[in-house]
Amino acid sequence: MVSWIAPICAAIGLCVAFALASWVSKCDAGNDRMREISGFIREGAMAFLKREYRTMIIVVVVLFALIGFAISWTSAVLYVFGAGFSVLAGYFGMNVATKGNVRTAAAAMDSGMPKALKVAVRSGAVMGLCVSGLGLLGVGLVFCILDLATVMQCVTSFSLGASSMALFGRVGGGIYTKAADVGADLVGKVEAGIPEDDPRNPAVIADNVGDNVGDVAGMGSDLFESYVGSIVSAITLAAVAASTSGGAFNELTAAAFPLVISAVGIIASVIGIMAVRGSNTVDPAKSLNMGTYVSGAIVIVATVFLSKSMLGSYSYAFGIIAGLIVGILIGQLTEIYTSDSYKSVKKIAEQSQTGAATTIISGFSVGMMSTVWPILLIGVGVIVAYSFAGLYGIALAAVGMLSTTGMTVAVDAYGPVSDNAGGIAEMSELPHDVRNITDKLDSVGNTTAAIGKGFAIGSAALTALALFASFSQAAGLSTISLLNPMVIVGLFIGGMLPFLFSALTMSSVGKAANQMIEEVRRQFREDPGIMEGTSKPDYARCVEISTGAALKEMVMPGLLAIIAPLLVGFALGTEALGGMLAGAVVAGVLLAIMMSNAGGAWDNAKKYIESGVYGGKGSETHKAAVVGDTVGDPFKDTSGPSINILIKLMTIVALVFAPLFAQFGGFIG
Amino acid sequence: MVSWIAPICAAIGLCVAFALASWVSKCDAGNDRMREISGFIREGAMAFLKREYRTMIIVVVVLFALIGFAISWTSAVLYVFGAGFSVLAGYFGMNVATKGNVRTAAAAMDSGMPKALKVAVRSGAVMGLCVSGLGLLGVGLVFCILDLATVMQCVTSFSLGASSMALFGRVGGGIYTKAADVGADLVGKVEAGIPEDDPRNPAVIADNVGDNVGDVAGMGSDLFESYVGSIVSAITLAAVAASTSGGAFNELTAAAFPLVISAVGIIASVIGIMAVRGSNTVDPAKSLNMGTYVSGAIVIVATVFLSKSMLGSYSYAFGIIAGLIVGILIGQLTEIYTSDSYKSVKKIAEQSQTGAATTIISGFSVGMMSTVWPILLIGVGVIVAYSFAGLYGIALAAVGMLSTTGMTVAVDAYGPVSDNAGGIAEMSELPHDVRNITDKLDSVGNTTAAIGKGFAIGSAALTALALFASFSQAAGLSTISLLNPMVIVGLFIGGMLPFLFSALTMSSVGKAANQMIEEVRRQFREDPGIMEGTSKPDYARCVEISTGAALKEMVMPGLLAIIAPLLVGFALGTEALGGMLAGAVVAGVLLAIMMSNAGGAWDNAKKYIESGVYGGKGSETHKAAVVGDTVGDPFKDTSGPSINILIKLMTIVALVFAPLFAQFGGFIG
Repeated sequence: MVSWIAPICAAIGLCVAFALASWVSKCDAGNDRMREISGFIREGAMAFLKREYRTMIIVVVVLFALIGFAISWTSAVLYVFGAGFSVLAGYFGMNVATKGNVRTAAAAMDSGMPKALKVAVRSGAVMGLCVSGLGLLGVGLVFCILDLATVMQCVTSFSLGASSMALFGRVGGGIYTKAADVGADLVGKVEAGIPEDDPRNPAVIADNVGDNVGDVAGMGSDLFESYVGSIVSAITLAAVAASTSGGAFNELTAAAFPLVISAVGIIASVIGIMAVRGSNTVDPAKSLNMGTYVSGAIVIVATVFLSKSMLGSYSYAFGIIAGLIVGILIGQLTEIYTSDSYKSVKKIAEQSQTGAATTIISGFSVGMMSTVWPILLIGVGVIVAYSFAGLYGIALAAVGMLSTTGMTVAVDAYGPVSDNAGGIAEMSELPHDVRNITDKLDSVGNTTAAIGKGFAIGSAALTALALFASFSQAAGLSTISLLNPMVIVGLFIGGMLPFLFSALTMSSVGKAANQMIEEVRRQFREDPGIMEGTSKPDYARCVEISTGAALKEMVMPGLLAIIAPLLVGFALGTEALGGMLAGAVVAGVLLAIMMSNAGGAWDNAKKYIESGVYGGKGSETHKAAVVGDTVGDPFKDTSGPSINILIKLMTIVALVFAPLFAQFGGFIG
Repeated sequence: MVSWIAPICAAIGLCVAFALASWVSKCDAGNDRMREISGFIREGAMAFLKREYRTMIIVVVVLFALIGFAISWTSAVLYVFGAGFSVLAGYFGMNVATKGNVRTAAAAMDSGMPKALKVAVRSGAVMGLCVSGLGLLGVGLVFCILDLATVMQCVTSFSLGASSMALFGRVGGGIYTKAADVGADLVGKVEAGIPEDDPRNPAVIADNVGDNVGDVAGMGSDLFESYVGSIVSAITLAAVAASTSGGAFNELTAAAFPLVISAVGIIASVIGIMAVRGSNTVDPAKSLNMGTYVSGAIVIVATVFLSKSMLGSYSYAFGIIAGLIVGILIGQLTEIYTSDSYKSVKKIAEQSQTGAATTIISGFSVGMMSTVWPILLIGVGVIVAYSFAGLYGIALAAVGMLSTTGMTVAVDAYGPVSDNAGGIAEMSELPHDVRNITDKLDSVGNTTAAIGKGFAIGSAALTALALFASFSQAAGLSTISLLNPMVIVGLFIGGMLPFLFSALTMSSVGKAANQMIEEVRRQFREDPGIMEGTSKPDYARCVEISTGAALKEMVMPGLLAIIAPLLVGFALGTEALGGMLAGAVVAGVLLAIMMSNAGGAWDNAKKYIESGVYGGKGSETHKAAVVGDTVGDPFKDTSGPSINILIKLMTIVALVFAPLFAQFGGFIG
């Protein structure tokens, strides 16, 4: 049966991930000092993940019971599997990433750039292949084991499992990383005047842990959710597609098609990852891009054949290709607004000369301006996909965009690995040329991270739209009309939620960062030996603060995302809920793009000034740019990315509970 | 005939405005120095208005021709009348406001607080009564002179006239005032260290002119547009209301009803204005609130009777009362987020202790959080109005909210008059106790301005929704379904437009402010006598810079608002255009609330610190708060308020051209 291709390819992807993980593990882990420091980071990161997962067990148990009683126990079990697979992907990926960092530094020390790049990319690749491999394995097994009718009823719960874990992962990780970062920067760099990653800074380990839990585990769970969500959405729309195909294919084939495409995507990602080869002459950014293009090209070619052979028409390929191209373009566009090679970042740097206020205003302006093209591209993608393949086509576009997730996450997770490698090199006082190599890898990592963020938003938008289409089917809605005032009210409430959610996550970062600032100041004050380098700071205390604050602060925004759709669905009914979802997607995507890109642009404007422009490091202009960067931190690493999950999670909650709302919802109005 | 009540009451309102204007004119205008300075401000403001109107003539001519050829020449003529009435309201109102400022200062000097309050309020009242009087006179005359069928076809063009003028007025005025303000503050206060409103500051006159063109004329044209738009919307929905009333009333009565309510509102506003009496013992804020409550109460009582007598049911009164109450509540809620009596502003001040970055982040958080209640209130208002009176009810809610516009604008315009009075007192070196009185008036003015902004956004939202309902009727749409991907694409594009628009207006302020900064620096550098007080700065040059920059920079955002709906309507069709309008209203309202309230909160956090908390003026904490305030300036005075107009103008453009789109639109998809 054709559908076994999916779990088989997923298993192949996971085997490759296992092989890469062993390869990374076998690489040299450097000298004792390096091992010690990376040990701290690894311990902190794993301890956070474990405590985070333990906290989430309550959510899992509650939702398990709720789904079991309200929907079905098969759904409830699938929900737990979805959550479990998300956890496994995060756990394996981070496990290797926190091994890869020190080995990248060691490779840079012993063998130079090409080997260091290879170690960093392969470490990231384990995360990438775990995300796509486990995602496809899960959905694929559900599809192969259960009968089609049960799949259609229950598979959305698997997606809900992935989404609910992603929310807490992204929000918790985002709060963790920024609390540590702001604490380390404000007290260490600004007040005490010690450089970045200086081992005397008590928050330095927490800062490096943060890169892992935020940028590796957080981003991974985000894309795991999108990946699973897009496939699930396409499966649930298969019946509609089959019924309008004029008998060219049946529901089963239409449901299997996205699985097969994703299976091809995993193989393409493996090939793409292998295609990334470091060299002393080629820019690492080019090597990484090469991997992305290779895997994308393979999927495009395969899609054309599969569309014709499975569904009897080339038109479905257009939907997939539209999604894939839009995804890559949105990613690349991000660079125009966030890289110092283009005028937006230069403009912010220039405006920093008149002080922090003009830095902020111009950064904002750039962030808002940067929403235009991604929105238009998403619009074009939706129109193309729909006109070739209907609502099913929109889901296929999301599947296409996410088919090479393995590659995308690999490139993305490479960034924090390199960043950490640099931190370890600094803390272990390795020679300057080692730091030069890791800096070069890291600077490429910043660009790939920005591109990855753009991609994550674009894919979240398309996945949410696809799930929205699935929701309308599940709720039995033939229209969600804006002329119905309940829909307008829903639209307003939905639009407001990302604002509320961002306000919550930003003030959480503020609170957590304040605790960290107090702690770092206390350590410097109470033990003057720290600054003199004679006594060691208490790293563990700072790690503990970030962990505790993140776990505490992630609860409120997390509950909001789960409760809001339930409340609106029951109180105002399914049509109003549809309005709410649409409002949340639109406002959420806009805010996320604005916040991510403004944050990225401020970051790079600061770095641009540090390169010597407008007075360079330490000048008044630089100080103004640092304010921009600090404001941008929670924008781009906490609130912005968390919105991706918010919009997907709310849609999937609506989708899973749609039958209930349709039956009991709408007692107001 | 009952409908003549409208123009008659409008004429009464205008007569009262005329009487108040004469009364203000006859008040003492102070000593020679005061007259000289206020002469500069007045000249600058009137010169700006004249040049602004002259620039807009091109827009008027183009749209006149477009409407004439595409719709009808009656519509085209009404369009010109709408534009002309808006201009007249702005011109008369500002004329008196720029007389009132110096007379308020003189009254504070000669007679003390009560008289000064009276002069300031009455000066503002002229603007208020001109806005509502001319608005109702215009629509009322159209209604009385033309036959009902023609009214239904053409009255929207009158509203378009008001909207197109409002856009340029709001955007141009907003850019003018903030360019001057930032220039005066950054170079004068921060760099040269001279106090606010110091006559040695070359930009000081431009700054005071800015208060008038931005806060008096800009705000007036904004509410003129909402006022006219709400009535016009209710008129166009009269047929729907009559057809579902079961014969209780006919279309003519339903169309006359909002006019009669507005007529009552004008009389209520006159009474409210007269009820504001200054006293040495009563807080001026209480006096002003008293006026608002008196006029609101009159409208509520009258509405109940009129609803029953004209339309045969009390239920229409609920729509109007819902709107009126929601409007007042949204205004009051604004205070919770922007006044230093509440915890949000205090929190920002506290966060300013750790630097400008935390000031910005917490202000943002407050701005985002402040969207929650207004959105829920608007939702409740819409549901109540709709469930009692259908789509017509939503329009009635807007009419109700805006019925006491005369009073609202009076209170609002009182702010800049008092602010100017303080400036004139400072520049004329009047005794300290005079400045104390004007400061007290001004500080109340800041609160009323914040409330006014909240009200302006709420009314814009409701007016836009009402016009949206009218649009769907005019376009013959029975559904605008979110399940149609074109609608989703429209929704995305519409949501993006307020972001793009804000980016444009903010970068315009940046550009204009930079020119101003350069000029002020140049004057200080080239003529050291200015700082010594031996030679006069070149005020006129700064006024010229603000004027030129504002006129140049308002063009792009203005054209965007007119062209975007035309483009989407023709390219993607009426349903997608409906999606676009809904997206723009939702995203626009959210952004506007966020920007206005964040700006207001930063402003008052700075003032709170200046009152002596956290180190007071000159401390590092204060410097951080000043950054927040400077960022907030274009947020709350340019971009935020301009979005109000954007959403209304786009909706009215769609409404006027709806028949065309329905016929020729939608060639894509």
